[in-house]
Amino acid sequence: MATKRELAALRKHKSQQTLRKLTDLAEKVVAQAQRLENPSVEIPVRALSNVRFNKKKQIIEMGDRTQSRTLFNVNMAKRFAQTFLVAKACKELLDAGKTTSIRDLYYMTKHTIGRTSENTFDDQAESDPIIEDLEVAVDTLREELHLFASNRGSMVGELTLVDAGDTIDARRQGSGGWAVPSIVEDEVIQFKKCDAKFVLLVEKDAVWRRLNEDKFWRKHKCILIQSQGQPARGVRRLVRRMTDELNLPLYVLVDNDPWGLYIYSVIKQGSINLAYESVRMAVPKARFLGLSSYDRERYDLPDDSTIMLNSKDVSRAKQMMKYPWFAERKWQRELKKMLDSKVKLEIEALSRKGITFISEEYLPRKIEERDWLV
Amino acid sequence: MATKRELAALRKHKSQQTLRKLTDLAEKVVAQAQRLENPSVEIPVRALSNVRFNKKKQIIEMGDRTQSRTLFNVNMAKRFAQTFLVAKACKELLDAGKTTSIRDLYYMTKHTIGRTSENTFDDQAESDPIIEDLEVAVDTLREELHLFASNRGSMVGELTLVDAGDTIDARRQGSGGWAVPSIVEDEVIQFKKCDAKFVLLVEKDAVWRRLNEDKFWRKHKCILIQSQGQPARGVRRLVRRMTDELNLPLYVLVDNDPWGLYIYSVIKQGSINLAYESVRMAVPKARFLGLSSYDRERYDLPDDSTIMLNSKDVSRAKQMMKYPWFAERKWQRELKKMLDSKVKLEIEALSRKGITFISEEYLPRKIEERDWLV
Repeated sequence: MATKRELAALRKHKSQQTLRKLTDLAEKVVAQAQRLENPSVEIPVRALSNVRFNKKKQIIEMGDRTQSRTLFNVNMAKRFAQTFLVAKACKELLDAGKTTSIRDLYYMTKHTIGRTSENTFDDQAESDPIIEDLEVAVDTLREELHLFASNRGSMVGELTLVDAGDTIDARRQGSGGWAVPSIVEDEVIQFKKCDAKFVLLVEKDAVWRRLNEDKFWRKHKCILIQSQGQPARGVRRLVRRMTDELNLPLYVLVDNDPWGLYIYSVIKQGSINLAYESVRMAVPKARFLGLSSYDRERYDLPDDSTIMLNSKDVSRAKQMMKYPWFAERKWQRELKKMLDSKVKLEIEALSRKGITFISEEYLPRKIEERDWLV
Repeated sequence: MATKRELAALRKHKSQQTLRKLTDLAEKVVAQAQRLENPSVEIPVRALSNVRFNKKKQIIEMGDRTQSRTLFNVNMAKRFAQTFLVAKACKELLDAGKTTSIRDLYYMTKHTIGRTSENTFDDQAESDPIIEDLEVAVDTLREELHLFASNRGSMVGELTLVDAGDTIDARRQGSGGWAVPSIVEDEVIQFKKCDAKFVLLVEKDAVWRRLNEDKFWRKHKCILIQSQGQPARGVRRLVRRMTDELNLPLYVLVDNDPWGLYIYSVIKQGSINLAYESVRMAVPKARFLGLSSYDRERYDLPDDSTIMLNSKDVSRAKQMMKYPWFAERKWQRELKKMLDSKVKLEIEALSRKGITFISEEYLPRKIEERDWLV
């Protein structure tokens, strides 16, 4: 276990690394200016054209293409200035040892320029992509720039951890659970005693609550996390750290519809938009536990527990069948079954078999029979 | 402090009270049937026409008008049957000592009737109002029927509480906090050691995070709760219990726009739709701490930290000026100032004065100067 002093040293070391990256960026531009060159920043291209699926690592990766952003260019001057405005604000945060939200950062960096009526940023839709540019330009995550997105998700189970110096025993977090923060890097969160054999990530808080009430995590020795839909960055990074550092398998339980499968795929291999984060956010070990389109027959669920696919679901499923990360036969089969059956199935539909069917039959049998997709 | 045995007894007593109400409802209908009368249930009318603002209590209340729902009536037969289907499912939950979500309840009660193609419920939009009917018909909250809505919100601060048998010291909940569950009745949550002088409820999680990072709650001896927008029922009921049982004032911090003021008003006097809950969910003692339309001048915030009101904001503000609970001069003045200035202001706009301006200047001065509205 790291002592408080060691942690403080770790925090300082990490901030200094990030500060160094920001300072390097600035010094390079200053040097260019002194040489009377056009100051420029190289920014890796964040677009589908610069994304590839790494089959071996099973993650979506960013390619090598970059774009120069230069000061003396009418189309780029504003974004060039914005990039350094954001970098400056992040430097201030790092210097002060404070973190803040991306919304806050927008306000921190927003002002009217001199006596013009020109604003540095007109709205947050302008500052958010600049943050992403900065992340890729200096190869750092926004959490390392001391920025956070919204936090969502809660956790209970067979793990003790330390969060900002406080010991959290996830076995004793009542019905509410510990709220997963948005920054979960190792200088904030350290894992201590772990008695869990796996991590179960559930898309829905109501299902999580059912499982917590039935103390599923105690009986089956696991860590139980809910993400309230598409997991926020904090939850993604936390389960990634659990699979890496605690060497636990991660099971994902989502609705049986294209959106549920997509949630799973983002957890597992990352997303196209934020491909540069996959290397630290994706969890290639993740296992899709359910709900599968085959569960209806396998678990004898009544026909009227399903919902008809709508046209959006159908086109989304067809689109997903073309993604390279769903190219394997098992996934094509899964998606085809969904399209053929014309129905989707929510996790709650399991309640048609009884309130505790999910915790006492469905999940134990799934895990026992290793009935998952990877 | 209640012992485990006493709590179990309390839980049992409360379930039995609710079970009695449900059984009474059923027995009345059975008796009617045996007398060959048309079985009927009296359901208080849940509509604006049956709602009034109680000035003395400062809450929105439901009036006395009721409506009969009878079995032998083509327009009512289905809803009559649905009412008892939901009541039966709640009885099962209470008997089993389990709770579930309203989504789950929909699935539990959904099935196709006999050999017809008629479903008991076609979607959740049909079962949710039936739950509300049942709540008013037997004068109970859905939490007492063992039903929960989604849970949202987290808490840190100068309070120890017990949640489902686990002791939660809110002074030691790290950066994430304790996630507020959706059912916070006294058989689940008990307050223990409280060193807080007030409760601060913040609409936004990012602001809450800022205040938690600055340990605002320790310096100013308070309980710090965030609601992620309009507070879920769990947060509303929890702060109500804190003001009642711990005798603490509640300060509310929201954006300066009509939606922020509306959030405050729902916390304080309840909503029109769920007027019957006000008596146990509303917090008449709540104080509106900010952001006020006057804060821009008072705290010298730059003009470009504001956002222009859009047409929706304007019409919403005008509509709210007509609500009886905004009739007092101070509120009319506040809303008029917003309309006159033509701008709104987010809490994050305070960051234009520095990252810690909110925790080190704005809030302390507001509370010190008693600069709030009630």
